Amino acid sequence: MTALVADTRRTPGIAVQPVPIEAVRIESGFWRGWLDRLYDVTLPSQHAQCEATGRLDNIRRVSGRVDAPFRGRYYDESDVYKWLEAASWALVGREDRRLRALVDALVDDIAAAQQPDGYLHTYFALERADQRYTDLINKHELYCAGHLIQAGIAHRRATGTDALLDVAVRLADHICGEFGSDARETADGHPEIELALVELARETGQRVYAEQARFFLDQRGRQPPRLGGYRYLQDHEPAAEQQEIAGHAVRAIYLACGLADAGLELEDRALWEASERLWRSAYETRAYVTGGLGAHWAGESFGDAFDLPNRNSYAESCAAVAGVMWNWRLLAGTGEPRFADWMETTLYNGMLAGLSLDGEHYFYPNPLSAASGQARVEWFDCACCPPNLARMLASLPGYLYGVSDRALWVHQLAAGRVDADVPGAGRLSLAVETDYPWSGDVRLTVREAPGDPVELRLRVPGWCDRAGLEVVPADAADPDRALAASGYAILRRVWAPGDRVALRLSMPPRRLVSDPRVTANVGRVALARGPLIYCVESHDRAGLGQDAFALPDDAPVTPGPGDSRLTGMTLLDTTAVPLPGTPEPGALYQPLPGDAQAAHAPTNHTAIRAIPYFAWANRGPSSMDVWLRRQEAVSS
Amino acid sequence: MTALVADTRRTPGIAVQPVPIEAVRIESGFWRGWLDRLYDVTLPSQHAQCEATGRLDNIRRVSGRVDAPFRGRYYDESDVYKWLEAASWALVGREDRRLRALVDALVDDIAAAQQPDGYLHTYFALERADQRYTDLINKHELYCAGHLIQAGIAHRRATGTDALLDVAVRLADHICGEFGSDARETADGHPEIELALVELARETGQRVYAEQARFFLDQRGRQPPRLGGYRYLQDHEPAAEQQEIAGHAVRAIYLACGLADAGLELEDRALWEASERLWRSAYETRAYVTGGLGAHWAGESFGDAFDLPNRNSYAESCAAVAGVMWNWRLLAGTGEPRFADWMETTLYNGMLAGLSLDGEHYFYPNPLSAASGQARVEWFDCACCPPNLARMLASLPGYLYGVSDRALWVHQLAAGRVDADVPGAGRLSLAVETDYPWSGDVRLTVREAPGDPVELRLRVPGWCDRAGLEVVPADAADPDRALAASGYAILRRVWAPGDRVALRLSMPPRRLVSDPRVTANVGRVALARGPLIYCVESHDRAGLGQDAFALPDDAPVTPGPGDSRLTGMTLLDTTAVPLPGTPEPGALYQPLPGDAQAAHAPTNHTAIRAIPYFAWANRGPSSMDVWLRRQEAVSS
Repeated sequence: MTALVADTRRTPGIAVQPVPIEAVRIESGFWRGWLDRLYDVTLPSQHAQCEATGRLDNIRRVSGRVDAPFRGRYYDESDVYKWLEAASWALVGREDRRLRALVDALVDDIAAAQQPDGYLHTYFALERADQRYTDLINKHELYCAGHLIQAGIAHRRATGTDALLDVAVRLADHICGEFGSDARETADGHPEIELALVELARETGQRVYAEQARFFLDQRGRQPPRLGGYRYLQDHEPAAEQQEIAGHAVRAIYLACGLADAGLELEDRALWEASERLWRSAYETRAYVTGGLGAHWAGESFGDAFDLPNRNSYAESCAAVAGVMWNWRLLAGTGEPRFADWMETTLYNGMLAGLSLDGEHYFYPNPLSAASGQARVEWFDCACCPPNLARMLASLPGYLYGVSDRALWVHQLAAGRVDADVPGAGRLSLAVETDYPWSGDVRLTVREAPGDPVELRLRVPGWCDRAGLEVVPADAADPDRALAASGYAILRRVWAPGDRVALRLSMPPRRLVSDPRVTANVGRVALARGPLIYCVESHDRAGLGQDAFALPDDAPVTPGPGDSRLTGMTLLDTTAVPLPGTPEPGALYQPLPGDAQAAHAPTNHTAIRAIPYFAWANRGPSSMDVWLRRQEAVSS
Repeated sequence: MTALVADTRRTPGIAVQPVPIEAVRIESGFWRGWLDRLYDVTLPSQHAQCEATGRLDNIRRVSGRVDAPFRGRYYDESDVYKWLEAASWALVGREDRRLRALVDALVDDIAAAQQPDGYLHTYFALERADQRYTDLINKHELYCAGHLIQAGIAHRRATGTDALLDVAVRLADHICGEFGSDARETADGHPEIELALVELARETGQRVYAEQARFFLDQRGRQPPRLGGYRYLQDHEPAAEQQEIAGHAVRAIYLACGLADAGLELEDRALWEASERLWRSAYETRAYVTGGLGAHWAGESFGDAFDLPNRNSYAESCAAVAGVMWNWRLLAGTGEPRFADWMETTLYNGMLAGLSLDGEHYFYPNPLSAASGQARVEWFDCACCPPNLARMLASLPGYLYGVSDRALWVHQLAAGRVDADVPGAGRLSLAVETDYPWSGDVRLTVREAPGDPVELRLRVPGWCDRAGLEVVPADAADPDRALAASGYAILRRVWAPGDRVALRLSMPPRRLVSDPRVTANVGRVALARGPLIYCVESHDRAGLGQDAFALPDDAPVTPGPGDSRLTGMTLLDTTAVPLPGTPEPGALYQPLPGDAQAAHAPTNHTAIRAIPYFAWANRGPSSMDVWLRRQEAVSS
């Protein structure tokens, strides 16, 4: 078993390879709790939802195993495939006979649903067979195929069995025959197949699948347009020429992932550079401080540069998952720490907010400001997000570390153990002890090491401006010089069992402000500590109305322990100034009272408490804000 | 000649009728300047643009008078029709032989372009005749027809000649034959024909046109959907059942106008009440303080309630014009002053901002905040706004006054003279002297009066909370009691020539704040005086960066005279506090410096000046804001 999230071992020019999931054990700490809930609650409850909503029967009816009408939406099977991908990765992390039985049964149902010619789509099978590929703009056939292929690859890598991969290969072969310059010259309105086909090329060694991915990428922005020329579908310009990320956020990011994958695999610079360019557009001008992507509900889409509303921010959970995937691809291709930074920000904030602390309630959009009443729900009609969150969590161990020639990269700081096969050197095993992200202390102990020198590339997060590094024994590496490098501290030596590295990240609470072109955040400040973005819920502001208080620039912010539902978390205590002159809901526009006496009245500083953004909406209905009004100290 | 903007004289249950344009002379004051430019610059230059861009030749080629390919967009002829409506109304206000010659020639060209069966559309004539009515969602055939019908009506009322009205009637008859429950059961994706057909019913006395309008209104929100079910096209719900204004703003407002018109004309309460309900949705939750409507560029559309971004606000000039038309309809049906208030706000702010002070440059969207570099342009590819602004200005005199049984309504305060035929009484003529909106003093003198008592209903704008009223001679009316009524001060007496009424509206500069659910305006204040909303351009803030200053709640705001380009205007002088801690453009998210020393440094209050919003972008490139950061005085 080599459960790699992407098998780039033969990909040319790659900067850093992943370490397979089975080589990474998360034995304690922050992520352990999320993974336990994933196994115990999230995956079983999602399977039950897929059963209850007819998603599984939709497959079984095509297999001839149940007699029932099609239920739900035409792309619902993609949720099943994503769940299957998640469950497959999960089987790497924990032996679970019950889960394995669910997976096996489902794979068997899917295989039986595949048509003799390789076609697989439960909506267009049977009575709608004559409508195959007639509405690619809307109907997501190849999107579903992409998720099936990803599931097939994960299943093979996780279980070592071929049953689902064989289905994926037959389906991919069918698609390669149906789409091409001598066949249908178009693509799917929802990208996804592209990145899946590149990985299938890696899994099978058949370059033709990567070429097919490039064919699909090249269909966008053609004349006449294949997909109506819509920005919503990224069909407004050729994919390789797009300058700014636009349209439906998840589609845009999956497309950008496909550009990166095909660019790497086929050594196609234009595709790769388009992905990098779109990344700058996304993360330098259109990303929420949480890593959320996609500003607007309308069209589930990216807005213009710096257009990042808080109250109605979209920031779909799927877009956060896709953002992690995208950053990982660019990190793999470049080794640049900015990508690891945004992965971290997204994982801890924009993504994790999509899942409740009980492991079975979900947000689809993730606003940075909410009026009262929003709560996560058990499932959605369009249920793309829940299994997407599950597959990212299940595969998370595979994203934490990397290897390159004689180097082990620690991309993300998490308690546990890694047994990495370092190319050119051999097995380097580390135990990592840390209470990250609550603490900035990370202690690594070498358990096993090769005889040759290996670089330990230890990521110092971009949020940290004061780090300390200690190596024991101290003779062979220069911690100060290592820290001077940007992003990854590089320690090169012949490691020996028992060697220890201590990374100490100073983690004071921070105040963040935005580029002033983000008009939504003008006059506002966000609190952060370590990789976590914080927010203030109505539970924790002593009756102050939403936006009816300000945080003075000089008010101390003090970390403190959370309680009850938030036990184990570090919260931030501070003091707010009430703003009694804040208007009340009423007339859309109101005269400001001529005598601002009320505003001059002495006001009491009020203690408020900020909690990690990911933890909001877990204590009953609340209003919530990430960006708080700032009281700048001016003399007047 | 009875140049009524709407001929509701036989409409059942109407509250207030318009006074025809020819009965209203604007001899001096604020609007005189705009009308002079309309005649001298705007209308001739727009005709030249229509000529230069092929819009006129597109008509002549169908008339067989030029041999040229079709140029431009398929709906371009609507601009010509709107210009023709504007020019027709203009001919009422000024004898202008050159303009009349342009109008006559154009009417002749259009009549010659009409097909034998009554069909008229220059794009679908000739080579595309077989595609008529095949893409009503996108291609605007009936939208263009609506504007032709409106032009025909205006031309008839303004000139007393039938040439263009005959074209309109033949076209309408053709349409009535092509669309109906026994013919095509659908409508146009862009509403407009509905309100035009109701007015044609009024003009011709043929109720069938109003019934046809109701047919089109009833096509929306059907199952199966006629227009794809798109919110963008207001096809998501039956028009009479829609609860919230949604989708493309201009379409939504024209539809709401049609609902009001058909509701009145056909005594169809459901249609009328839908229009009122949509009005509340629009003006109580989705209108900019300028009267601008439509928050988003994406889809040129309304957003959710309270979603009113300033930097990228859409607020199309056409939507402002349509908003005036809509408010006028609801005012006519109810006599309620809230509609006259929003008409005023929109006319002076959201609408007038669309047109430059030189009369020949235009804004399509009208943001409430602009980074540097935005400037009005001479024309647009999609040039709907320029002639729409022209037709509203040209017909403006017809919106200022109203009559009902034994009552003359002064809806809008403008210098000039009105000779109104008051139903049930007779001719009441007034001279109005005022420097409104710069001054709140309005002096009305009776020039001619009937022998019977007439109510003078004098609107006291909603923005004014302190008004004085004096009547000379004083014996017969009770000004204090009159003022106690909300909205319109009612003075009932037998008037005699020489009687005088003085209305004094206290007009101190005002600070406005928003309902806090308008998150874009939290912590912000707008300046206003009288009906005018003000803004601050970079020209007038002494080097302070955009959003890098705040207006203290207690800073005096003083009216003062404008100079150079703004001569004759009243500007507002005040004092701002620099906010040196405002971040600079750079990283999307930036740490706030730990030592906020800079922010504690003594700062000098800085004199800034606000100008009327409508006058912005007339002095070279600038950045501009309506909503300024507010410094609330709190003790801390």
